[in-house]
Amino acid sequence: MSEVIRKATMARDASPLLSIVSTERKNEALHRMADSLLKHASSLIDANAADLARGRESGLSASLLDRLALNMKRIEAMAEGLRLIAGLPDPIGETLQRFSRPNGLNIEKVRVPLGVIGIVYEARPNVTVDAAGLCFKTGNTVVLRGGSAAMESNKRIVEILHEVLASLELPVGAVQLIESSDRASVDEMLRLNGLIDVLIPRGGASLIQNVVKNATVPVIETGAGICHTYIDQSARPDMARDIAINAKVQRPSVCNSMETLLVHADYAARELPALAAALRAQQVELRGCSRTLELIPDMKAASDEDWDTEYNDYILNVRVVDSLDEAMAHIREHGTKHSECIVTENDDNALRFLNEVDAAAVYHNASTRFTDGFEFGFGAEIGISTQKLHARGPMGLPELTSYKYKIAGSGQIRG
Amino acid sequence: MSEVIRKATMARDASPLLSIVSTERKNEALHRMADSLLKHASSLIDANAADLARGRESGLSASLLDRLALNMKRIEAMAEGLRLIAGLPDPIGETLQRFSRPNGLNIEKVRVPLGVIGIVYEARPNVTVDAAGLCFKTGNTVVLRGGSAAMESNKRIVEILHEVLASLELPVGAVQLIESSDRASVDEMLRLNGLIDVLIPRGGASLIQNVVKNATVPVIETGAGICHTYIDQSARPDMARDIAINAKVQRPSVCNSMETLLVHADYAARELPALAAALRAQQVELRGCSRTLELIPDMKAASDEDWDTEYNDYILNVRVVDSLDEAMAHIREHGTKHSECIVTENDDNALRFLNEVDAAAVYHNASTRFTDGFEFGFGAEIGISTQKLHARGPMGLPELTSYKYKIAGSGQIRG
Repeated sequence: MSEVIRKATMARDASPLLSIVSTERKNEALHRMADSLLKHASSLIDANAADLARGRESGLSASLLDRLALNMKRIEAMAEGLRLIAGLPDPIGETLQRFSRPNGLNIEKVRVPLGVIGIVYEARPNVTVDAAGLCFKTGNTVVLRGGSAAMESNKRIVEILHEVLASLELPVGAVQLIESSDRASVDEMLRLNGLIDVLIPRGGASLIQNVVKNATVPVIETGAGICHTYIDQSARPDMARDIAINAKVQRPSVCNSMETLLVHADYAARELPALAAALRAQQVELRGCSRTLELIPDMKAASDEDWDTEYNDYILNVRVVDSLDEAMAHIREHGTKHSECIVTENDDNALRFLNEVDAAAVYHNASTRFTDGFEFGFGAEIGISTQKLHARGPMGLPELTSYKYKIAGSGQIRG
Repeated sequence: MSEVIRKATMARDASPLLSIVSTERKNEALHRMADSLLKHASSLIDANAADLARGRESGLSASLLDRLALNMKRIEAMAEGLRLIAGLPDPIGETLQRFSRPNGLNIEKVRVPLGVIGIVYEARPNVTVDAAGLCFKTGNTVVLRGGSAAMESNKRIVEILHEVLASLELPVGAVQLIESSDRASVDEMLRLNGLIDVLIPRGGASLIQNVVKNATVPVIETGAGICHTYIDQSARPDMARDIAINAKVQRPSVCNSMETLLVHADYAARELPALAAALRAQQVELRGCSRTLELIPDMKAASDEDWDTEYNDYILNVRVVDSLDEAMAHIREHGTKHSECIVTENDDNALRFLNEVDAAAVYHNASTRFTDGFEFGFGAEIGISTQKLHARGPMGLPELTSYKYKIAGSGQIRG
């Protein structure tokens, strides 16, 4: 039996046990996990040092090494994350609906865990703690398959969590880490129908696409964001400028940052040169459509491919459009249904944009950067779903649950 | 461009148009579709006759020919189905949640269509009408890929629906039928990420497994049902008998019928011979575990495979267990998380069973045959989901929707 099947089976077998643990015991365990991470911080930093040494040898980039590195401050943040999760309401057991049928059946729709969640992610050890904590709070057992670069750190983290679970007589099988760094172990996870209920990939586009394309287990797709800001004819120039700059440069590397700016022709004629200058002052490289280039000749032309590129960088496409409809058509063609914004003083246009643009989050006069579980007040986030099945947009605790129907009868049979 | 891509693109392009059509106009269209099916019944019966003739030539079984056949009564039932859908509440546009953030952002979570739904199904023309009606009411456009045996009937049905849509100036692209009977057209649909949002397979196990195993588009898995009834120590014999017989024989061919009966050893010693006789009197073939065979020697032994078989027939496995825990372990190992029942007078055991068994519908003292959208009072059903992502159990109109967040700001940017 392979490691993946063995550990997924342990997670599956722990699932009914964990699903009925009380909120109080789960919260106690989360606080104890936080305590224990801090208590064992030095051994965790040692394990991490081994990963870092291996990473340096194998030539990991400085930015990847930075994501991989743990220090006291980061361990404190991980522990604090677990305490925050403990403080959130437990969705499990909530009655979503209750109704009776004419034949006397009493039907209750109740929130339950999804079961076994598989998380496939890259080399950030904080994801190990975060995902384990979110799944644990929602009564889900979890099979973690992190990047091999963080393996020693992840192993130490999971050891620490297991010690806590064992000491509280909670099912240790609830948190499983795949230690094989073989790519085949990921492929195996993706097809474990019957053992894994849901897969959530977290990481870059190629990791996510590999999961989406090869999984037979249901997947929640997260992350890809080609987000647009459309500045309408009537937009206030100061607001439009602030929103565009914020959406592009406040943190360009994340999925809810803007990749393409759409500008109404009338507005562009008046304001685009100043706006372009303001963006360039923030080190943003602009790539324009032909009409943009007419207004601002010293600009690179955007290629066909550029409109479909998630730069995650200080690069922005700019296109001049003649109407709201043309802007929405562009978004329909090139967007990833993540976050889209209109800046306008025209309420009819705002309403049309909010109603007709098909995206997880549609904004009127606010930066797309707000699409985030914490900014929405969910208190936690396992990712931002860009699909429409199950969960859409920022996923908090309730998005990690399913439901079932409990039916109480008195001998009813179907006629 | 292939037929599948061309038609899925039409469905995708019709999606934003259909998503904002008012409830009144959708209901009017549904009633007009019903009228039009009746008005054109004779041409529909002619088209169906061509399918039937082809089916007889190619040697379709009598039961498949019966499922394929249309007559006035069945066309009236299809029309009535559309009128029932028109009478149901429209979930689209419903505000699910509304909240404000300290920074002044107003966030509204609103129900929206899933977008483009792909339905892959077999040779029952009523599914064409039913699926088109359910998707239309929920603002979803649909790409239908029915069995080739029903192609002439399906083409005529979709022609009739298109005439109605065109006459009401509604987007005709909303209902698309794939006419290629090539298996490759199904495979193509399964991987149309970006054009199809969700796939729902409807049909036998092999059709569903083909979709689950090969789709990269998110799937709602429906239908597989290995359902158990557990008769506990304290069950009332008359109730246990009635429920067991109903769950097995009221309609053995469907997914919510029982395949395996689990019986507590004490109860079995007292009551199993009489219960077995009652089931056999209903023409049920019994296959027993070794302990069952000790009590009732003239019975075929159940093979290892039998416990994992959905017979959909007058065959039933019988196993004697020593405890509730053993029964639940059996269900965990062999069930498909569809519908499971305990018959008991012991409330503690009932509560444990309802809480701990992981299935879409868990019953205390009622037949598993009630897992059904109509029996639950949903007024309609597109299938019974056996997965935990998105929808679980009978899926009515709300299960054909997603949601989005509409955010109204006044220039907020993220700090």
